[in-house]
Amino acid sequence: MTRILGIDPGLNATGWGLLEIAPDGAAGLRWGTIRPPDGPLSERLNTINWNVRELVERHRPDSVAIERPFNHRNVKTAVTLGQAQAAAMIAAAAAAVPVHEYPPRQVKEAVAGLGSADKPAVKQALMARLGLAELDAPADAADALAVAYCHHLMTPVAESLEIQ
Amino acid sequence: MTRILGIDPGLNATGWGLLEIAPDGAAGLRWGTIRPPDGPLSERLNTINWNVRELVERHRPDSVAIERPFNHRNVKTAVTLGQAQAAAMIAAAAAAVPVHEYPPRQVKEAVAGLGSADKPAVKQALMARLGLAELDAPADAADALAVAYCHHLMTPVAESLEIQ
Repeated sequence: MTRILGIDPGLNATGWGLLEIAPDGAAGLRWGTIRPPDGPLSERLNTINWNVRELVERHRPDSVAIERPFNHRNVKTAVTLGQAQAAAMIAAAAAAVPVHEYPPRQVKEAVAGLGSADKPAVKQALMARLGLAELDAPADAADALAVAYCHHLMTPVAESLEIQ
Repeated sequence: MTRILGIDPGLNATGWGLLEIAPDGAAGLRWGTIRPPDGPLSERLNTINWNVRELVERHRPDSVAIERPFNHRNVKTAVTLGQAQAAAMIAAAAAAVPVHEYPPRQVKEAVAGLGSADKPAVKQALMARLGLAELDAPADAADALAVAYCHHLMTPVAESLEIQ
């Protein structure tokens, strides 16, 4: 069994999704959203860091897959996303869990077959791939599950076997 | 006695400087540079986070003052600086130490009287203000001491007394 923790970073809402992959396919799903309360930037980042630490300790993922903030025209938005991403990455690295970054376009292409797919299309494709009739996860958590699934698709089978 | 830990964030080199302020002026100085070894981004950020945690635990500053990455034309550079900054901010917030951000221009203006002052001019002004004939700190650490001193200048006396 391989566990991948996907993270869709954001200062107001950081989605997370835990994907359990058995040799015969996806075996388990959990998800949620970290919502730091209003406050200084340092405290909001600390809340993200602390919550991801908790998730990593509780679920012991084999890897963390995270959306990479990129190609933002607005520098301030890109910096903020990068900081939320850093908060999650540090939590993984502190527990010696390897981190893999994927740009949003690559996640969409891997999961839905189209780099420009919209959120509902990615969610539909993810459900089809996981054999689910319903997926109750909110948008941030669905995005996090998609990046986790993208990492699964990108990981050679040999490496998955090695982890087991 | 008030202690301010200044941080000049960077992925390759994060300068730090600890300024001790007594009622009759600056009373102590320490400084150094955190140099994360080559490796994945997550591990380098974790190294910065871990080292700033250590500094905060050892020196128990009343505040952390940090340079804010801003106005970078290169989005990637701005994101990386923001991530190094986040690593330091999280370390302070985890120890409940308040964090204050200052743009480089404001640091130069507060310390050297000119927002466009170059590094040697800022260092000279800092030495004059601290009454030092010499300051052996490397550039990153001198910048960190300057941001700490900037925070001291920006802090109302009432707040300094309250901290004592």
